[in-house]
This record gives sequence, C-alpha cells and structure tokens, in this order.
Amino acid sequence: MKFRISSTGFYVPPDIETAEDLSARVGRSVEWIRSRTGVEHRHVARIPDGTLLGAEAARQALGDGPPPDLVINGSGLPRQVIPDNSTFLLDALGLEGIPCFTVHATCLSFLVGLKVATSMLGASFSRILLVSAEVTSVGRDFNEPESCVLLGDGASAAVIYSANDQVASELLFWDMETWPSGADLATVKGGGTLLHPNRPDAKLEEQLFHMSGPRIYRFAREKVEGLLQKLWNETGLSASDIDLVVPHQASGPALAALPRYGFPEEKIVNIVGEYGNCVAASLPMALHVALDTGRIHKGDKVLLIGTGAGLSVAAALLRW
Amino acid sequence: MKFRISSTGFYVPPDIETAEDLSARVGRSVEWIRSRTGVEHRHVARIPDGTLLGAEAARQALGDGPPPDLVINGSGLPRQVIPDNSTFLLDALGLEGIPCFTVHATCLSFLVGLKVATSMLGASFSRILLVSAEVTSVGRDFNEPESCVLLGDGASAAVIYSANDQVASELLFWDMETWPSGADLATVKGGGTLLHPNRPDAKLEEQLFHMSGPRIYRFAREKVEGLLQKLWNETGLSASDIDLVVPHQASGPALAALPRYGFPEEKIVNIVGEYGNCVAASLPMALHVALDTGRIHKGDKVLLIGTGAGLSVAAALLRW
Repeated sequence: MKFRISSTGFYVPPDIETAEDLSARVGRSVEWIRSRTGVEHRHVARIPDGTLLGAEAARQALGDGPPPDLVINGSGLPRQVIPDNSTFLLDALGLEGIPCFTVHATCLSFLVGLKVATSMLGASFSRILLVSAEVTSVGRDFNEPESCVLLGDGASAAVIYSANDQVASELLFWDMETWPSGADLATVKGGGTLLHPNRPDAKLEEQLFHMSGPRIYRFAREKVEGLLQKLWNETGLSASDIDLVVPHQASGPALAALPRYGFPEEKIVNIVGEYGNCVAASLPMALHVALDTGRIHKGDKVLLIGTGAGLSVAAALLRW
Repeated sequence: MKFRISSTGFYVPPDIETAEDLSARVGRSVEWIRSRTGVEHRHVARIPDGTLLGAEAARQALGDGPPPDLVINGSGLPRQVIPDNSTFLLDALGLEGIPCFTVHATCLSFLVGLKVATSMLGASFSRILLVSAEVTSVGRDFNEPESCVLLGDGASAAVIYSANDQVASELLFWDMETWPSGADLATVKGGGTLLHPNRPDAKLEEQLFHMSGPRIYRFAREKVEGLLQKLWNETGLSASDIDLVVPHQASGPALAALPRYGFPEEKIVNIVGEYGNCVAASLPMALHVALDTGRIHKGDKVLLIGTGAGLSVAAALLRW
C-alpha cells in the first residue's frame, strides 16, 4: 500500500542527568562514561510511565489533523503487563472505540511497527499512529556502570497514512534477523512469568536492565554486515546511494562504527550524546530530529537501521 | 493478500487442577466455582514459561512443512520483559536469522496477530507462524476467587500462508475497539515501569492478575453488541449466516451469553470447562479443537470473536 509519514513528534521529560551526575554514583570517571557510551546527558522521567511521554509526542505528530484509525505502541518496555501500553496511549489522547495494540521487538519496535503499519494500510486503515516511548531510568542497575550510564528516557511518534502516488514514499527494503544465541546479551529477565516476583528467592536485580556491551558490539557487527549485504544485493544499491542513515542510538561506539560499512559520518544522524539510548524510542527520535533540521528531502533514500535484544538486527530503506 | 491457515497446533501441560482442588484453597464451594466460571479443571505448567508451551504447539502446526519466514508471538503474558517471547520461540524451535516479534493485545492477541499476519503476507513473507501461549497460573491471586479459579495455561499456534485463489480463505471482516474507560477491569498492574519492584512500597499483589468479572460482563455485553451490529451492517450478513462461532473462552457465563446475539448454542465452540481462560491462547485453542473435530469445512463462515483487557472487543469473520 502506498504510504507516507505525514508528521512526527518528539518528547523528552524536562529533568536531565549528566555524565557528571552519574560519575560518582557508579564509581567511574566522566571520561570513562564518555568513551564507553558517548552519552553526555540524558532526560529522565519523574513518573515512570512511557505512555505519558508517548502521548506528548503523539499529540505533536497528530497536530490539527484528523484522529488516527489505528494506534500501535511500538515500544520495548511496558508500563504494566496488562492492559498493554496502547490502551493508556488511547486514554491519554482522549481516543476510544478504535483498535490499538503493542508491537514489541525491544529496540527495533519502531522498525517493526513501521513494517506492520505500512502493511495494514489499505481498505481497513488509512491513518495509523505509531508511538515509541520508553522510561528506562527506573530499571537501571547502578551496579552495572556500562548500561546504567547509557540509558535515557524519551518518546517519538509518527503518523503514517495511505498516500496517493504523487506524494507516496516507498519501502524499498525491509528485513530483520533474530539470532537467539545472543538472547542473553541484553535482558530484563524479570517482569514476566518465568522469574515471577512471587518466588521466595526473587531478587530485585532480575527486574533491572543488563547488557554485555562488548559482546553485543562484536555479535552485532557481523550481523549488520550480513544484513547490509542482503540490502545491496536485493536493491542493487550501494552505501554511496544512501542520502541519510538514521540508526538506533545504541551507543557512541556503535554509531562510530557505522562508517566502516561505507557511510560517511556526516550522513549518520547521531543524537546519543544528548539523549542516551532510549530503547525503541531512539530511532524515531533521531528521525524526528533529522526531519526537523531539514536533513531529509522528498525522494531521498533514508536508511533506518538498528540492533536490539534478541539479538536482532533490522533495516528499512525508504525512498522518502 | 490471499491467505490460508494451513494447520494449527495445540498444547497444554500435563498437570491438572480441578475445581475440587481449588475449592478449599479459595474458600468457595465447587458449585460456586462452576456457576461463576464454568471451569471444571485447567492445566497448569510446572515451568512458568509460555514460550515452552508455545513451541510444542508450533511444532505440531509446522509438522513436516517448510520453516516459517516470520514468527509472531501473539500472547498477553511475557516470559520476561526483554527480549520479547518471540526470541525464545525461535530458540526452542531451532530457528534463527528470521524476523520475529510480539503482538500484545491481551486476550485478543491472536485476533490482532491474525490481522497483522494476513496483512504482511505478500512479497516479503509467504509462511507466517503465529503462536499464542500463556502461563497464567503463576500470577493468580488466591485472595480473589473469581479470577484465580477461572484461569488456565495453554498454547496454540497457526501457520498462515500465501494461498492461491482456489484454496484461499477470505477475511470478510475484521475490527477491534478499545475503550480505555474499562482499563481497570482486568489488570496485572506490575511487571512494568510504573509500579517497578524497586519501589520501597512494592507489593506482591500488584504482580497478580485482577479482574472485576461482573463489571466486565456488563461492559462487554454492550460493546460486543455494537461490534456485531457493525459486522452485520458492513457485510449484509446476519447471525444465521454464521456456520461456527469460535469465541475467546472468557468464562462460562460469557459463553452462555452468546446466544442472545442470535447464535444457537450448537454453533458455539466451548472448551472453557476443560481448559479455563487461557488469555490469548484460548481462542486459537478453540479454533484448533473445532478443526480437529471436523466442525469447520471449506467455505464455512467462521466468526472469531472476543473481549480483552483494555477493555477491548474484536471480531474476525473468515470465509474458511
């Protein structure tokens, strides 16, 4: 179905934590934090509910336009187990009586939501609101410096609508690969049925985010290379044909590695220093910033790409 | 895209809890349990991991056929927060390098997953595995008799593929409505960021399933009526045109109320007495049982319908 992203929205909560603020707490120097994560500061929410951040971004994306006929929450972290976050997004936006659901693929939830949304446009739906919003700060493990100084809270939203040929964008490529041998590399092991808090031996650390940055980096490097090879083979394009790369903001080092695939640094949107890694919200936040600063023009080839817990890699190539 | 459900799978763990077993524990008579829930017994998992049950159902659905090119977990309860359940389904099935993600709309996750899957079939995907699998037993609140004697564990899976015109089914109608004013009627309020277990005042009961059966019943009755009216208006059909109704197995009383909409009892698949309410798994478990017992024939008009936390209602009408 022909589609176009008509508008996007962006929201971060006002409170900021800097690398300096966290340095003493985690027992690492500011320089250590900068070199390992590239994160100078991040925004943190006072109320740990991603749907409140998401609703702010959604209001901005919806603007004065008509209401959506479907709302998809594309986020990794739930506000609660049941109902899913999309119900609370509807509530905060004053919407009711329309379909809504959550798509969860951790950091790749926006990329998956985009594929789902563009597939669903057509007879049933003509205007889909896709929201990625995360509160990571509440689940940080301050005994694991490498992850807790990386994460941030934030939200983004996009309105995707059925467009006529003249204005439509095109999804030239979409693919995702999940490699369960990397399932232990980035986890929140609690919050579900397996390590249920009603076990007598439940531990708080099970409910916190853990990752092994260096192992993810090595694992992802190989998988991203394979995925890009698939992209070039299927489209006949090469890295030099890409006008802008909008990556998941995994970390400073992860973003710094992208030029090895042939993308010049000036074509890579990098906001990790200001906002940290906001899980699924990072990629659409970067997309919003790119649009807002005039870095995307009609017809541009825009590559959305990222890695996520799973371990998964995914990419979408849009002719804007 | 033309599609067909080529096969389904079904799995429940071997251990059984009867109404008699639970009667003393919750301080209610067996007759009270029967009249309120209609559940004689349910299966309960020893290892509280829905992906293990889901993988058993998936293996049955996949049979000797080719592997899927996309796996969707359509379940309400996660095994853990990150990664999402689909990663662990891949792992248990020995799959890797393909896309996978979770669709979460609580009890309606299979109905939503079916719409998502049939929308995504086409150039990118030709054989999608949709799995709904739930372990509810670990999160039961034995201080809330009406819900804890209703729930059960179980799994079902379906393989949905791009079919040619001669064998294809047709999705004659699909719709869902979410009414956030009913968001408090069925909840697991913990497990996410809002009531994070690292709060000093965290309580175990936040992590358990709660519902208000009578209020859901009244709320849902009105919303189901509205949704069916939409179905009849859009398709020009009436209740007497439906060959089989495959409902979410919400409860005995909820199933007993369906004839008021014009469906004779013998056309309604009812397995709640044997398996309880298995959240998202209930509807595809009922579908599997209906197929397995020869109750669905090519060309039949099969109505899948249910209610879920949200509060949400959804229906899909298939020409099989």
